[in-house]
Amino acid sequence: MGEFEFIETIRHSFDGIGDGAIMGIGDDCAVIPQSGGESLVVTTDMLVEGVHFLRHATSARELGAKSLAVNLSDVAAMGAHPVASFLSLSFPPDCRREWAQEFMEGYRELSAQHGVKLAGGDTTTSLGGIAINVTAIGRAPNERLKFRSGARPGDIVVVNGSLGESAAGLQDILARWLDTPFAQIHRNPVPQVAEGEWLGCRAEVHSMIDLSDGLASDLTHILKASKVGADVELTAIPTPVATELAVTGGEDYKLLFTVAPESWENLRADYHTRFGTDLHPIGRITYGMRETGTASDSTDRDCLTAIVWLENGASVKKNWRGFTHF
Amino acid sequence: MGEFEFIETIRHSFDGIGDGAIMGIGDDCAVIPQSGGESLVVTTDMLVEGVHFLRHATSARELGAKSLAVNLSDVAAMGAHPVASFLSLSFPPDCRREWAQEFMEGYRELSAQHGVKLAGGDTTTSLGGIAINVTAIGRAPNERLKFRSGARPGDIVVVNGSLGESAAGLQDILARWLDTPFAQIHRNPVPQVAEGEWLGCRAEVHSMIDLSDGLASDLTHILKASKVGADVELTAIPTPVATELAVTGGEDYKLLFTVAPESWENLRADYHTRFGTDLHPIGRITYGMRETGTASDSTDRDCLTAIVWLENGASVKKNWRGFTHF
Repeated sequence: MGEFEFIETIRHSFDGIGDGAIMGIGDDCAVIPQSGGESLVVTTDMLVEGVHFLRHATSARELGAKSLAVNLSDVAAMGAHPVASFLSLSFPPDCRREWAQEFMEGYRELSAQHGVKLAGGDTTTSLGGIAINVTAIGRAPNERLKFRSGARPGDIVVVNGSLGESAAGLQDILARWLDTPFAQIHRNPVPQVAEGEWLGCRAEVHSMIDLSDGLASDLTHILKASKVGADVELTAIPTPVATELAVTGGEDYKLLFTVAPESWENLRADYHTRFGTDLHPIGRITYGMRETGTASDSTDRDCLTAIVWLENGASVKKNWRGFTHF
Repeated sequence: MGEFEFIETIRHSFDGIGDGAIMGIGDDCAVIPQSGGESLVVTTDMLVEGVHFLRHATSARELGAKSLAVNLSDVAAMGAHPVASFLSLSFPPDCRREWAQEFMEGYRELSAQHGVKLAGGDTTTSLGGIAINVTAIGRAPNERLKFRSGARPGDIVVVNGSLGESAAGLQDILARWLDTPFAQIHRNPVPQVAEGEWLGCRAEVHSMIDLSDGLASDLTHILKASKVGADVELTAIPTPVATELAVTGGEDYKLLFTVAPESWENLRADYHTRFGTDLHPIGRITYGMRETGTASDSTDRDCLTAIVWLENGASVKKNWRGFTHF
């Protein structure tokens, strides 16, 4: 049973339990409304040795920082400001005290960089490998929150950085080339904290997600949640590696978002002024296949929310899927 | 390195990072102040196979409920109302789909019982054993929050139920008697959710903690945080098992709290009216050894916050420590 399938099973069996104002499973973070027009966003992520990382292929310090980084990335994708994290760390007796201290040093450096308080946690022995769970909490005024469900036909599809390096780095690591530049990128993801919060302030950004499972998978999450389709121009995807790897590889931790077309050039210029880097338009949100007339009475909902891949404007058939961990 | 020592190491190295208004490590939950005089409380707990549970000695359903229960217990100990939980579940391929579904069923039942929304999570494969991490979030008006640090000399020390059954149950389980009444109590802790929230509303309750590590350990947490001592009358401890086990055994998940003496009888009567069960006074908060004159200039801070065990009013020497997991 895949992760997504299991989550779907869970979601339905818990329908109707608890406060309906809390928005749960289905976005990068859950949203807990507060008084005063503000919400807290909450995300949690577990990293397991041998599944999400190989102990010999990462330093403890890098792993400490990455454990927090992937959660800050989820907070950023909501347009929120991270405020606190909670860390559970289970490590086996063969992990020396120095290992745990180095892990905490990496965690501490990234916490300090973004002013995120370590507000609680749990440490325990493990009889298997290392397991790490981080919960991160952010805040945002309600009107700044971005969801997967806000994309509108006509929106420009944008990524804020280069894709595929992390996936190429994972290939290097699995081939035992641990110190290539791509391998270093894979081990040291940079969460787009300031960028996400800045984009949260822009009303023309209609939907947002972080790229953790790969563009093919993560854009599909936006399309399904928004009930729209997308055309994506493959030659526009910024990447130094093969396009297929850039589209299907995971763990980029860049932001993927959609922008109202009339405000796009303005946003692009302001972003460049603020961050000194470029945004990359890679496609357009469409009505999906309903517009073509071929699937107007289709019962296959996936047809309505598919990505149409283009190469220099011409449709090309690809059967690309998102990333799953080794 | 023990868990407490490692947490102390962590705490100091993170001093000064992040929002100082957030109260972190050192209570049952972290406290995140919101506008409108309310706070969120957050707790997280990791359960690891072979360390916190044995797969053959519990049903998946029981384990699902217990994973949530121990976190709801922390929320209750703050006097707060639980609103949401986040579950990360890592299970190995030899764990069948039925196991995960039964686990979720147990988790769902307790969620429904207390109206707590499952707002997010993560499921992943494990190459070792099962690892479970739950984060629970509660709310409370600030004036209702209870901390470990509020105990005052003269306070009555109270527990709201019987101690030691869970520890006796663990002994049974380790001796392979899996179906004794005590073993069932160990596997099925009952978080004191309504009781904790009710006690939160009572201003005469000055400090509170849940009994997860055993009375000797958890009362010491209150004493250290409050900079006080305590006399505890062993014959007053409600337990069907040996006193030592009741005092040092863990996982009772009852509430331990201290009450202003002038309001004690009133609180006790109101509690009985509300819940139909008794509160159990087991001791008194003292000034600690400073009052005796023996340690007024001591630099050993533990001396000031020690528990004095009494048997029918006479001091008895015991070297009891709290519970650590097998």
